[in-house]
Amino acid sequence: MEDCIFCKIVEGKCPCYKIYEDDYTLAFLDISKDCYGHTLVIPKKHFKNTLDCDEEIFARVMLTVQKIAKHYVNLGFKGVNILNANNKEAGQSVNHLHFHILPKMEESDFDSWPKLNGTIVSFEEQLERLKIN
Amino acid sequence: MEDCIFCKIVEGKCPCYKIYEDDYTLAFLDISKDCYGHTLVIPKKHFKNTLDCDEEIFARVMLTVQKIAKHYVNLGFKGVNILNANNKEAGQSVNHLHFHILPKMEESDFDSWPKLNGTIVSFEEQLERLKIN
Repeated sequence: MEDCIFCKIVEGKCPCYKIYEDDYTLAFLDISKDCYGHTLVIPKKHFKNTLDCDEEIFARVMLTVQKIAKHYVNLGFKGVNILNANNKEAGQSVNHLHFHILPKMEESDFDSWPKLNGTIVSFEEQLERLKIN
Repeated sequence: MEDCIFCKIVEGKCPCYKIYEDDYTLAFLDISKDCYGHTLVIPKKHFKNTLDCDEEIFARVMLTVQKIAKHYVNLGFKGVNILNANNKEAGQSVNHLHFHILPKMEESDFDSWPKLNGTIVSFEEQLERLKIN
């Protein structure tokens, strides 16, 4: 897709620090440098995010995520966080599906969990709205 | 697996607020109540996390994650975060693979992103260690 930075990376029009590539997916270092080894996994074909992604491609993206997570632990990292944001309200900044992989050396490396505000809505009320019948 | 709370939920020995179920996966509300609709997706078969999970089962888990994310947006949520922790150093608290789904109504609902400390290691040095040849 025109004007998509990740499509440009796939097409070789923008450089990246490539970690892994196969026919359907590409993994490269995030340029934020907010932690060592912060890696993005994307499909080569453009989808905005998890919500519009073809099922087969989504499964391939996730198997690449799994492959890299296992690889990083094999390299000596102690743990891995996997994160994904869908739509700007969830913090998505680049509109091309990407999963973040954050390898961790130590428990204190960073606080990997979002700070949530809590809810006072009962589980029964949540379930009534959310369940798939 | 004995003494696994999520296995007990799968076996019906512990109750849960069930959102969705198929032959391979189960989705239910997280009991933390840290945000409205906080949902966990797990495989029915026991795996510790993404690192030891069978590929086919992992793909099925992720397709259930995708199904629920789409369902929540169809219900009116504005965005969705998907998160997963592998090993205690990454914040994993229950040792049965689970993906978190956090639906969002508003951009200000919560800060969904981990606070990272940054790295001074060059991309070239990171790449040299991390890439899959």
